[in-house]
Amino acid sequence: MPKSDLVSLEKLEPLFNPRSVAIAGASGRIIEPYVYDVTTAPMVYLLTYGYKGQIFPINPKYEEIRGYKCYPSISAIPEEVDVAIVLLPANTVIDFLKECGKKGVKGVVVTSSGFAETGDEGKLNQDNIREVAEKYNMVVLGPNCNGFINVSKGIPVTFTPVVDQPKLVPGEIAFISGSGATLSGIAQRAKEWGMQFSYLVGTGNSAQLDEADCIRYAIEDPATKVVMTMIEGFKNGSKFLDVADLALKKKKPIVALKVGLSEAGVKMAASHTGKLAGSAKVNLAAFKQKGVLMVEEINDFILSAQIFTQTSLPEGDGIGVLSSSGGSAGLAVDLIEKEGLRVGELSPESHKELSDTIRWFATAKNPFDFAGQFLRDETFVPKVCDIFLNDPDISVLVMVMTALQAHEPVILKQMIEAQQRHKKPVVILYECGELTPEMDKMVKDSNIPFITSPKECFKVVGNLIRYSQFLKRAKEVAPVVDIPAGARDKALDVISKAGGHVMERESKEIIAHYGIPVTGQKLATSLEEAQAAVKYIGYPVVLKIDSPDILHKSEFGGVALNINNDKELKDAYGAMLKKVKSVAPKAKIRGVLVQEMARGDGVEVIVGVTRDPQFGPTLMFGLGGVFVELLQDVSFRICPITLTDAKEMIRETKGFKLLEGFRGSLRADIAALEEAMVKFSRLAMDLESQVKETEINPLLVLPEGKGVKALDARVVLG
Amino acid sequence: MPKSDLVSLEKLEPLFNPRSVAIAGASGRIIEPYVYDVTTAPMVYLLTYGYKGQIFPINPKYEEIRGYKCYPSISAIPEEVDVAIVLLPANTVIDFLKECGKKGVKGVVVTSSGFAETGDEGKLNQDNIREVAEKYNMVVLGPNCNGFINVSKGIPVTFTPVVDQPKLVPGEIAFISGSGATLSGIAQRAKEWGMQFSYLVGTGNSAQLDEADCIRYAIEDPATKVVMTMIEGFKNGSKFLDVADLALKKKKPIVALKVGLSEAGVKMAASHTGKLAGSAKVNLAAFKQKGVLMVEEINDFILSAQIFTQTSLPEGDGIGVLSSSGGSAGLAVDLIEKEGLRVGELSPESHKELSDTIRWFATAKNPFDFAGQFLRDETFVPKVCDIFLNDPDISVLVMVMTALQAHEPVILKQMIEAQQRHKKPVVILYECGELTPEMDKMVKDSNIPFITSPKECFKVVGNLIRYSQFLKRAKEVAPVVDIPAGARDKALDVISKAGGHVMERESKEIIAHYGIPVTGQKLATSLEEAQAAVKYIGYPVVLKIDSPDILHKSEFGGVALNINNDKELKDAYGAMLKKVKSVAPKAKIRGVLVQEMARGDGVEVIVGVTRDPQFGPTLMFGLGGVFVELLQDVSFRICPITLTDAKEMIRETKGFKLLEGFRGSLRADIAALEEAMVKFSRLAMDLESQVKETEINPLLVLPEGKGVKALDARVVLG
Repeated sequence: MPKSDLVSLEKLEPLFNPRSVAIAGASGRIIEPYVYDVTTAPMVYLLTYGYKGQIFPINPKYEEIRGYKCYPSISAIPEEVDVAIVLLPANTVIDFLKECGKKGVKGVVVTSSGFAETGDEGKLNQDNIREVAEKYNMVVLGPNCNGFINVSKGIPVTFTPVVDQPKLVPGEIAFISGSGATLSGIAQRAKEWGMQFSYLVGTGNSAQLDEADCIRYAIEDPATKVVMTMIEGFKNGSKFLDVADLALKKKKPIVALKVGLSEAGVKMAASHTGKLAGSAKVNLAAFKQKGVLMVEEINDFILSAQIFTQTSLPEGDGIGVLSSSGGSAGLAVDLIEKEGLRVGELSPESHKELSDTIRWFATAKNPFDFAGQFLRDETFVPKVCDIFLNDPDISVLVMVMTALQAHEPVILKQMIEAQQRHKKPVVILYECGELTPEMDKMVKDSNIPFITSPKECFKVVGNLIRYSQFLKRAKEVAPVVDIPAGARDKALDVISKAGGHVMERESKEIIAHYGIPVTGQKLATSLEEAQAAVKYIGYPVVLKIDSPDILHKSEFGGVALNINNDKELKDAYGAMLKKVKSVAPKAKIRGVLVQEMARGDGVEVIVGVTRDPQFGPTLMFGLGGVFVELLQDVSFRICPITLTDAKEMIRETKGFKLLEGFRGSLRADIAALEEAMVKFSRLAMDLESQVKETEINPLLVLPEGKGVKALDARVVLG
Repeated sequence: MPKSDLVSLEKLEPLFNPRSVAIAGASGRIIEPYVYDVTTAPMVYLLTYGYKGQIFPINPKYEEIRGYKCYPSISAIPEEVDVAIVLLPANTVIDFLKECGKKGVKGVVVTSSGFAETGDEGKLNQDNIREVAEKYNMVVLGPNCNGFINVSKGIPVTFTPVVDQPKLVPGEIAFISGSGATLSGIAQRAKEWGMQFSYLVGTGNSAQLDEADCIRYAIEDPATKVVMTMIEGFKNGSKFLDVADLALKKKKPIVALKVGLSEAGVKMAASHTGKLAGSAKVNLAAFKQKGVLMVEEINDFILSAQIFTQTSLPEGDGIGVLSSSGGSAGLAVDLIEKEGLRVGELSPESHKELSDTIRWFATAKNPFDFAGQFLRDETFVPKVCDIFLNDPDISVLVMVMTALQAHEPVILKQMIEAQQRHKKPVVILYECGELTPEMDKMVKDSNIPFITSPKECFKVVGNLIRYSQFLKRAKEVAPVVDIPAGARDKALDVISKAGGHVMERESKEIIAHYGIPVTGQKLATSLEEAQAAVKYIGYPVVLKIDSPDILHKSEFGGVALNINNDKELKDAYGAMLKKVKSVAPKAKIRGVLVQEMARGDGVEVIVGVTRDPQFGPTLMFGLGGVFVELLQDVSFRICPITLTDAKEMIRETKGFKLLEGFRGSLRADIAALEEAMVKFSRLAMDLESQVKETEINPLLVLPEGKGVKALDARVVLG
């Protein structure tokens, strides 16, 4: 599945699991008690973690460091070196790398800054790093990175102090970050919140290895169950999506914190539909399509990853809410709705059981405000938990703990037991002050999801539910949409015959070859041919001038609509040629396109493909009229798409209701639209090298059972 | 300004500042060390706070409690009692209240539950509480509440343990909450976060006093600078809005956490525009209109209130962002955009100064990623702060602290000093692990806004900016829109003449009396009259049957459009009467309405007023076509509105762009629309007692300078 441009596991193995580590630029300073210092830290950390392999400090200034022989250069080391970590100034890095290459070093971690982040010269130096690495068959992490920690095996090759005070305990979460500062800061907070890692990797500027390579390595390791990744920008978005596919197959969630997901991109989208593929929206769509969980900030980031190590996956999407405060329960429901989640509906049986359990001052429903009932009956909360967790529509149970005072520990314990008794996720939303040490220990020992911010709670619960839905979707095999045999060859033939000028007529021919119905059309080079064309198409027709030199046909009098009979045809044909020849005497005229004039009910939509700079061909969908241009009510998916993707794309737009029949109009043929979108995405993939962008605008979606019809289309080569 | 249904300050004074407190149901148990107990707590708290007034425990079982003489009943107390707190079962409350009344007690705090929250019987008992209170001229807090603490004067009349361990320190924030459990929980967290209160008040079921009364009391006290209020539901929304007006006048922000602000209400809005006034959206609009800051959860709630006690108000809305991590700065910008805020733009002078200060590896812009430059130059961060804080477009400066390691205390100190040096708000967004005790002390001592969640940070900064904009808006006096003299009398005359059946014709007459142009119309009772009407109106015209018995005119053949000449008029007139008489033979026909048929460019909008159950007459605005019915793209304001409100309402809708001119169409006469909306809101207020709902649909907004015209209108009495 992963494309060949992912670095192979064999090459990554000696980097992330080295038998020996050289430290170029190691410092011999002895600082007691330990004070943070970039050139001292890596060696101290290796020793602290009891690294079993060999350690080779490199620094011409020292004979030995901390009892280890120190070498003047990498080539002076007599034994094999798997990994070298570089703590040298930027201007010495290339020479050092070459020396590494000659020495046969397998992997290099370049922490030095001063490369692409500084401008064009730095960028060139960074390209040099990649070239040297490739020449010597090495892998390189960085430059401008803080290295990695293989926590599972206790191997820190880094200067980041998060590994120290106290030592990291191996866990199931791999955290791969482009931003080094963020890696350190977030990992520190996550560690304090009880998170345990399998790997921490800072990819820095990614001269060669990027986030996708490192995630791939981490998820191939059974130790890793979940991936956190912070991405500042993609160099190769497709590579990332391939890894996302792999992760979904392995059921290992990827939680992504991506910089640049605001609407800035979308705002830049001009009214012209071809420019609507604002990359922020495309990025969000790509993540959704590939089952990557998206977060916007660090707390959601940490908690969304952590919850997968704390609970099972929910079966459905119904959420149950318990609280001793009606106010808190009400606020929880507001947030559930806002997060696009669903409050579960208790079955009649559960409802009856709950009614029988409670007293007059509570109402048997979800969310359930049990007020003070727990005060007199210690079995009350467990009973209610069982009723909720046995209900088929409750997939996640959230207990909002508010002002329970001295009863907090008991109720917390009862919730922990409820989660153990049932196999459904139970989450504590804690809305009071700080925990007592006793309760804090209960929370940490039980590993129950324990969240102190309501918004974060439902964002995280939402990610849990969304991931289980992604897995379900991935299991369903969307029906395959057949493309007519030979479509690609025929389309290429049209393109080659068009001689560089694919006009509306050829565009529609290409689309028709992919099985998308288009309005009937014939090119006529004389009135007689036009009349013959009408015999085939039938009135009413549209006439359009066909000239590679005239793009804006109507401005040149090159369009005549609603021609109903032979007389109108004759008049319009003559008038059009006369007008065009007078305004554009030098234009090469291929003829007049006679087109079927589409009639009757239907909803006009726009389907387009542009080449996204991060992810390649990307399909856009939106409704005509005000929807695309005024409201920017569009959805995106990376090509190729499945029927499931098409279904989701259509339903993501607000205009969707119009297709379902609005104000008494007929429901449109949505199934045919979905099929056409899949075909169109196939076309985009087949012609990826020839076509820069393509669009059907409008595509008329006829009433149910009547299909779709492309009224106009545009294929732009390049 | 506040309406008379607010309880007077004179009556509230002895409640919130009592010279003596009686405790009905006080327990004599001595528990050491103190363990929480509802009937023990209130007296213990009064003693702990060194209450200076008299304390009278009431309990027939004891002779004395904690050294205080205990009375068998309230009437047995020989001295005057300002306040009694009731810790008795629900069924004894009314009798006790009557006794209080006879005794001349000024205020009663009823903590007992078992009233309206339990159903109809409880509701009746609760109504009894109000009646008894009114009869004896007492004020009552509760029932089902946890009392209040006048922190400024050290008077706790409550059982909530938040007052204890450690004692509350007087501060500037009044927290008024409907939900008792939430009051306790949130106040506990707020206290641990360093928040200091002037008042804490739980209003419970609000038999008599509600949140508005208590907020009003708190803001009249100079000790209170900010109000936090949690509201489960309004009994009288207008009362709350009056207090909001007062608070804005006194420049005391109200931060509101309101239950039930999800789209649930809006979803219920049917396609019929009259039902669009979903109360969730109306509530949000009312808050915005009256300058109330809205939050959705407890952390935003606490921090949004706290920041007003920590910084000055920003002048403008430009935000500056500093960070040592490009990744963190990028995420901050995403969140700023998402929150609807604006990244400030550095002036050319600031830009130059910044460029001169930095080294190659940073770019002089906002957000500013200063990477590792602070490491070698201790003056670097203060210099950058000065450049930013001196820039006219930077009104708030946010420092995102990420992985600064050992340099954290220095930079924190520099930021605190920067805030002291300048008078602009400086906010710390801290993205690492836990603070060291040293730093924690610096933060608490300096009272600098210090936030650990990025989302919360920008929500809170947003509220700070929004509030200063509310104040600015409140200062601007919107131009007054003149209503034609005698409009109300003329409108009432139309209503009375319509005899209970205000049809389209009368509705438009009423609207016209308020100075909103309507299409020309005349009622004709004969063909001759119709012909005469056309002389006055001019072709083309529309004919509509006028019958109080026919509401859906077109279904009965009662509408004929686009009549262009005398022949068409004659035919249509005859055909309509014939058709209507055949399908609805019993319908009373007043005649045929001859109407001007509006022509030409223009954008159709809908303006309606419904009576919101919480806030009274509420104006709705939206564009025609798909905007209102399909997209629910509408905005609301409580009547009466100002021109400023109208401007904001129009610009809040997505469809607004259509009015500005879209796809080459002319810009519509937005000023005329704004004026018409103000007039329409005046109409709604004038006729509040007669009219249940009213709507202009469509109101045609003509090109700029040409005004508006109501094409159809509907006034529903009731």
